[in-house]
Amino acid sequence: MTYTFNIFKGSSDGSIHAAQTTRPALQADQVLIEITASGLCGTDEHQRHNDIALGHEGVGRVKELGPNVRELKVGDRVGWGYIHGSCGHCEQCLTGAETFCPDRQMYGQTTLDQGSFGDHAIWSESFLFRVPDGMSDEEAAPMMCGGATVFNALHYHNVQPTHRVGIVGVGGLGHLAIGFASKMGCDVVVFSGTDSKREEAMKLGASEFYAVKGVEELDIGKKIDFFLVTASAQVDWELYLPILAPGAVVLPLSVAEGNFVMPYMPIIQKGLRIQGSLVASRYVHQRMLHFADRHHIAPVLQRYPMTEEGITQAMKDLNEGKVRYRAVLIPQKA
Amino acid sequence: MTYTFNIFKGSSDGSIHAAQTTRPALQADQVLIEITASGLCGTDEHQRHNDIALGHEGVGRVKELGPNVRELKVGDRVGWGYIHGSCGHCEQCLTGAETFCPDRQMYGQTTLDQGSFGDHAIWSESFLFRVPDGMSDEEAAPMMCGGATVFNALHYHNVQPTHRVGIVGVGGLGHLAIGFASKMGCDVVVFSGTDSKREEAMKLGASEFYAVKGVEELDIGKKIDFFLVTASAQVDWELYLPILAPGAVVLPLSVAEGNFVMPYMPIIQKGLRIQGSLVASRYVHQRMLHFADRHHIAPVLQRYPMTEEGITQAMKDLNEGKVRYRAVLIPQKA
Repeated sequence: MTYTFNIFKGSSDGSIHAAQTTRPALQADQVLIEITASGLCGTDEHQRHNDIALGHEGVGRVKELGPNVRELKVGDRVGWGYIHGSCGHCEQCLTGAETFCPDRQMYGQTTLDQGSFGDHAIWSESFLFRVPDGMSDEEAAPMMCGGATVFNALHYHNVQPTHRVGIVGVGGLGHLAIGFASKMGCDVVVFSGTDSKREEAMKLGASEFYAVKGVEELDIGKKIDFFLVTASAQVDWELYLPILAPGAVVLPLSVAEGNFVMPYMPIIQKGLRIQGSLVASRYVHQRMLHFADRHHIAPVLQRYPMTEEGITQAMKDLNEGKVRYRAVLIPQKA
Repeated sequence: MTYTFNIFKGSSDGSIHAAQTTRPALQADQVLIEITASGLCGTDEHQRHNDIALGHEGVGRVKELGPNVRELKVGDRVGWGYIHGSCGHCEQCLTGAETFCPDRQMYGQTTLDQGSFGDHAIWSESFLFRVPDGMSDEEAAPMMCGGATVFNALHYHNVQPTHRVGIVGVGGLGHLAIGFASKMGCDVVVFSGTDSKREEAMKLGASEFYAVKGVEELDIGKKIDFFLVTASAQVDWELYLPILAPGAVVLPLSVAEGNFVMPYMPIIQKGLRIQGSLVASRYVHQRMLHFADRHHIAPVLQRYPMTEEGITQAMKDLNEGKVRYRAVLIPQKA
């Protein structure tokens, strides 16, 4: 017995193609999921030139269970993200940091024949997350990577409710970061290119908003303790270093090529901590879902049909900065 | 009543000059100290082109007490380092991080008329450190900045005894870092240009030593959890990134111009923490002295007379990498 289902793949010219995947019978704790929604993330755009199945912010309903599944039942609503598996016995796995397991199974690197753009996927139960009742499928999807990434940056790296948190960029990640940091009790200061997102940022929980395009010096009063860069590219540190407090934690979350470049001596003179942070490990991911559910934090969505055309259009809009604030792909009924 | 004493200054052409300083009567908790030894640090070299009093690794004997001195007595042995004062009421001061006080008084920036190159200095009691009985004046001097800097990097940033600690550079800072990390129970892996310091590094407490000149790929087995760069310049990250463990803490301690440049994505993919670290706050500085005393950690010294010629020669040797491992200047009896 095998499963054949539909997926969407990238290609060398960057065009998106419907395709099919065939997989053997469910093994161990594998679960067959019927996909009901998928977020679109910047890293999908980075993968579109590869001949692999795309998508890693998936949500769906459990359809069939492998022989060793322990908790999930048919019909349960589940989601999955960037990481699909890990070795389970290395130091990272043993300390709840399995996202850094040297043998982690990860989007774009392993399991290239399925993703979250498609109608089905098969994943290990141990890397699936129950969607809280208060969260719709399409709201939950962008939480599986975007939400997890910004929540992890804050929570795993010990943001304090008394911190003044700076967030650069109001996009898929940034708009969720504003909600999380605000509900964590922080003072949230947002930096964006222009004023166009000011009102929405304030509504999402920001206490201050600064448009930085063309600005050479920022005057924000009390300095920033915890600084999240969620912009799609690296930022101009000459602009931001003067507003960082001594000992500030700086989290560059952008996915970018090249080098991280920051004036050297201020790192030492201010005792800055530049902290690399990936998506969330599972226990943080679960806390993120519960926290979001409890505080009604949900992505602001822009919906597209999960078709070749819909995905292509969503990617185009994402590239052009037209998505407010997270694109979600919805499978079309046959 | 005034005090007039001898100091040594830098100058625009980098030459060292004997000079005199005159100061008013001791105020508040000020203490007059007769200098008995001073370390020579890389940052003195950075200040030699300025017309200021040089030196910031001082040790001496208390000679006179200001009206509000509370603990020190005439004859006590004390030392001082990079920081001479702070505001006492900002958040940094209140959290034992006064080295980051915005109003800190610091070598090269404030109190430019006296240092530790000279025969006397006047400092506030609250920024003086008692030298432990088991430590000679000349051994204590390099601990006041070099020792404090590497101890702080390890202790304040929570190195664990189970960590594999990498140390780049076996110089004034590096050779003390080896001793500290080794006595803290860590597994100490040293990286140096050539094999010339291998034997001494092993004797100081290293468990492994790698000569890296011309090496393109390092094979060290278990990866590094905690990585101190004590070299005089920034390092080639392409060489060291592959040997850093996930979540590794990286402490660049070199004083260098320009930018900190590191390949960007590995910071995120490995969850690296790049931690700026200055000299030690007072409570850490005190712990450092007690720890060094208890474990008989002392700098390996190269002695020079505290004269224009002696200072000039010591700086020349430091620049040429000929100091093994910390230069100390000894006042000459009249």
